[in-house]
Amino acid sequence: MLPRKIADSTVRRLAMYLRFLEEFDTQGQDTVSSDALARRAGTTSAQVRKDLSFFGSFGKRGLGYDVPALAERLREILGLVRRYRVILIGAGRLAGALATFSGFGARGFDVVAVVDQDPIKIGKRWDTLQIQDVTRLEAILRAEQVDIAILVTPGDPAQGLVDRLVREGVTAILSFAPVQLLVPEGVDVKYVNLAIELETLSYGLRHRSHA
Amino acid sequence: MLPRKIADSTVRRLAMYLRFLEEFDTQGQDTVSSDALARRAGTTSAQVRKDLSFFGSFGKRGLGYDVPALAERLREILGLVRRYRVILIGAGRLAGALATFSGFGARGFDVVAVVDQDPIKIGKRWDTLQIQDVTRLEAILRAEQVDIAILVTPGDPAQGLVDRLVREGVTAILSFAPVQLLVPEGVDVKYVNLAIELETLSYGLRHRSHA
Repeated sequence: MLPRKIADSTVRRLAMYLRFLEEFDTQGQDTVSSDALARRAGTTSAQVRKDLSFFGSFGKRGLGYDVPALAERLREILGLVRRYRVILIGAGRLAGALATFSGFGARGFDVVAVVDQDPIKIGKRWDTLQIQDVTRLEAILRAEQVDIAILVTPGDPAQGLVDRLVREGVTAILSFAPVQLLVPEGVDVKYVNLAIELETLSYGLRHRSHA
Repeated sequence: MLPRKIADSTVRRLAMYLRFLEEFDTQGQDTVSSDALARRAGTTSAQVRKDLSFFGSFGKRGLGYDVPALAERLREILGLVRRYRVILIGAGRLAGALATFSGFGARGFDVVAVVDQDPIKIGKRWDTLQIQDVTRLEAILRAEQVDIAILVTPGDPAQGLVDRLVREGVTAILSFAPVQLLVPEGVDVKYVNLAIELETLSYGLRHRSHA
């Protein structure tokens, strides 16, 4: 059973813990203290224990966590016990990088389709993928049984594309488009805005240089 | 004068507000209510007022915010009244997409150098950039007066590269490497972990399908 409402920041930390547990596991380490796990993840042991406590009781006082068992439990919690079918909407350079990003496949995310509206791009191949016409989006979503859409478009067409995804039942979207998207309840959108990440750095640079 | 400690999430929202203000400005809209700005940004007017209140008093009751004036003030707060010189560490496909990402230049971030360790890549040109040997990193940082480093490498070499950046006085780092980096106080690291973003979606998919 999973708790209903866990903050994204907690889920992100769980995903981080899983990485480090897998690292410890590869190194043949059987148990790990919340302290050691926290140090590796750049957080506190209290935070580690709190994050894990949402999902039941782990570890034994003084013995720490069983590394492979906790890793397996985190994979279950994160839904990583199956593979996911991903579509890329937009076939620009960033999409091209994502299509071949080994980090996705390694975690169970398979890019199964890519679409664009540009006639020059449509039909071109990226390794085993062929760029398809976005006008065929609905047919592709059905044929490919897509779980997750990654939106790699400019801001303008983004909302219209998301409306089409939602109508076809897609409930998980990762957007690189620099706009706020409107979706009905039950649809989950995460945003990656690379320029905004740089702006949090420029904020810090300005702030520190004035300190 | 800037307040000392503002959460990253607040800074990110300020950067979002700026985008929407610029959009309103382009459309010839002179004033905007906190309500309208909040709606566009997918938040509440109370949040908008709170975020802005950290930086002084804006807007007049009943009249809303002066669009160009607030945009200008946000550019100042975010440090966007100057340009920043950016180095890419790593010359893989994702770095290639970032090097030509128009969203960076438009916000004042200029990629001025790219380095890699791969002899096959070193010397190759990406438009006006030439991939340089990472062994020359220190000399390049000095010659190019780099403000911000974007780390686009695997996890293993990341910490060693960050140590070199820090020794040369770089205090702003955006990392795509899937590891937690150790830096001294005064150095700001932001992380973008694309696989983890997908895992927050798979968490949601698993959770909803079990709800």
